[in-house]
Amino acid sequence: MRAEIIAVGSELLTPFRSETNSLFITAQLNRLGFVVYRKQVVGDRPAEIRQALEQALQDSDVIVFSGGLGPTTDDITRETVAGVLGRSLSQDPAALNDLAARYRRFGVRMSSNNLRQALVPEGAQVLENPEGTAPGLFLREGNSLIFLLPGPPHELEPMLKNKVLPLIRCWKPVVRRFDRKLKVAGMGESSVDARIQSIYQNYPQVETTILSSPGIISLWFAWQGDPQDESAEKTLNELVGKVRDELGVAVFSDCDEDLPEVAGRLLKLREMTVAVAESCTGGLIGKMFSDIPGSSEYFLGGVICYSNRVKVELLGVEQQTLAEHGAVSEAVARQMAAGVRSRCGADVGISVTGIAGPSGGSQEKPVGLVFLGLAGLAGTEVKRLQFPGNREIIRLRTARSALDLLRRRLL
Amino acid sequence: MRAEIIAVGSELLTPFRSETNSLFITAQLNRLGFVVYRKQVVGDRPAEIRQALEQALQDSDVIVFSGGLGPTTDDITRETVAGVLGRSLSQDPAALNDLAARYRRFGVRMSSNNLRQALVPEGAQVLENPEGTAPGLFLREGNSLIFLLPGPPHELEPMLKNKVLPLIRCWKPVVRRFDRKLKVAGMGESSVDARIQSIYQNYPQVETTILSSPGIISLWFAWQGDPQDESAEKTLNELVGKVRDELGVAVFSDCDEDLPEVAGRLLKLREMTVAVAESCTGGLIGKMFSDIPGSSEYFLGGVICYSNRVKVELLGVEQQTLAEHGAVSEAVARQMAAGVRSRCGADVGISVTGIAGPSGGSQEKPVGLVFLGLAGLAGTEVKRLQFPGNREIIRLRTARSALDLLRRRLL
Repeated sequence: MRAEIIAVGSELLTPFRSETNSLFITAQLNRLGFVVYRKQVVGDRPAEIRQALEQALQDSDVIVFSGGLGPTTDDITRETVAGVLGRSLSQDPAALNDLAARYRRFGVRMSSNNLRQALVPEGAQVLENPEGTAPGLFLREGNSLIFLLPGPPHELEPMLKNKVLPLIRCWKPVVRRFDRKLKVAGMGESSVDARIQSIYQNYPQVETTILSSPGIISLWFAWQGDPQDESAEKTLNELVGKVRDELGVAVFSDCDEDLPEVAGRLLKLREMTVAVAESCTGGLIGKMFSDIPGSSEYFLGGVICYSNRVKVELLGVEQQTLAEHGAVSEAVARQMAAGVRSRCGADVGISVTGIAGPSGGSQEKPVGLVFLGLAGLAGTEVKRLQFPGNREIIRLRTARSALDLLRRRLL
Repeated sequence: MRAEIIAVGSELLTPFRSETNSLFITAQLNRLGFVVYRKQVVGDRPAEIRQALEQALQDSDVIVFSGGLGPTTDDITRETVAGVLGRSLSQDPAALNDLAARYRRFGVRMSSNNLRQALVPEGAQVLENPEGTAPGLFLREGNSLIFLLPGPPHELEPMLKNKVLPLIRCWKPVVRRFDRKLKVAGMGESSVDARIQSIYQNYPQVETTILSSPGIISLWFAWQGDPQDESAEKTLNELVGKVRDELGVAVFSDCDEDLPEVAGRLLKLREMTVAVAESCTGGLIGKMFSDIPGSSEYFLGGVICYSNRVKVELLGVEQQTLAEHGAVSEAVARQMAAGVRSRCGADVGISVTGIAGPSGGSQEKPVGLVFLGLAGLAGTEVKRLQFPGNREIIRLRTARSALDLLRRRLL
């Protein structure tokens, strides 16, 4: 079963805006067993919208348009699609009513432009839009189902989930698709793959995808088949179970959580608090903890000790240790972790000190060298790591490794 | 002059990867006066690559392919394009030599798959790829110029700039395009537009684009025309000058710098250092300063005082002030800024305390209420702000407003 996505909007053809609705649309269509085999991005111009639709009608079971349903004169998806299909347009009283009610609710006068948004092609079904002024539309043409959806993601996404998917289920034979996601930290992509290849290769009916980002590997297992087949979920559970057994504690989430969320959940469970002492990450770990609503339950804060003076004054790192070992050293990481723990009154102190580059490296201490400290869970430990990559990647890997170290010790 | 971009790669049709090369390609083609009028994303399948090329050949002066030139069997752009154009393929000795030399340099054995990467369609020109194994290709067909470029951005971008643009200049009449960018902080999109509309409307030959992100408005002025026309640059300078006069110090960059860079440059000029005390931003401002290589010259670090205890212990905020006014208050912001300045030994102290939400708000102190403190430049001042948006947007606006306050006081 083939699906095509056509995004309409001249702003998507500038250097400033990339098309992203199709990722969400693809994820949803995949779940019903549809493969997206082409995406087109066209401007608000009749010729290209027409060409795109004509081509899609030759090949697609499902065609999803996004954008071009607004009230301004450059929004022409509705009219152009009706024209290509040879359908006349007429004002839909219910859609007009909804639109008028919406404007009344917000106390805004409806302009005559908005009247166009209640135009409906012959034989089309209106898809209500509780989030905006542009109703969606559903049309059938030959064997193809055509959906016209508004461009803003907060309008498109609920309409797709609540209106479009049920209509597709109603008109097309769909499959049942199960999927599972595992997230792994502390291992590289190739070593993860080497460990689990012999497992997933025994499940050719499951589609396995390995996605890598600095410090985190995501594994995605998907199965699709007959809705009556009861074995699917069992098969998938069996595969995921074997992968978990093989990778052990390196797996940190089976429900798409991030590392700070998982570490935070473990801290809450143990009723513990954490504080951070950040040199080369300069606040990044604190930012990641505090991104999470409610993190003040376990995250107390800490010290950004970018300069040596701050390490000494606010964390109690000894001048002599700095002089003897340098700021990027096991000894300083140890004092930083212990210092931030005691000065903030936290149960656990985390510290990072390293060389993020591009300058500041030496033969002995190259760019990418990082020391992570952890104080308060079975004494104080320090881990030495060497990361590849540029400044941004080294900082991200450092922060994620520190969070992963915390997570592993909390297990 | 019309250009079309065709991205090839089955991974671009999954929910996990969006197509982004086209933004860079578009920016470069726009500079020569080409309009991108359609983008297509297709998988590594001959049928869709063929359809996309056939359609593009009807309409386009320039056709840019990205992806599908690698050594694996699913990389078929080269063979498919040659097939559509009816060109035979033959091994190019120079390309093969380059490829072999590359493998020798990295001490890796070249596999027989790589031989395909040296195949060149009849009449095509090879575009060397110093960054990877896949050479690019240039073909002419009718009035269209066709470029096949590798998918990885670090290979595509230099090839586009160094090889493709000169070839386009050589074969097509190009225009000269000048552009200027101004970045504005501390004003909303509609108030910026209201102030400058009457200015840019007097320059209909200049294309004006206003782009908004939380706390920052970017203005982009572009002019294109005859390469001989000397007045273009003068006209653009005149318009930009009038806009700068109207917006005054709200304009923080005319060369696409970010706020932390601009604030950092001003600190360096004045040989001053800064330290931050972050409550609701939790490390974000420190992260933004330390994102910049070399920022240790002026950024000393600071304190993430997410909990009240850390505000008291590490910054010297008074218990009584916290009890009387609450953590989110003018008085606490004042003590935080002064405290972080003196304890870190910085010339300037910045503080932020606020309610980022989603919970924690009240009638008196709603979500989005923020106090910014600045100590050390003409005493200590505190600014009260109220931001709309979700947690992420409130935190970003807060950080940017703090950096903008610092920047304005350093002018």
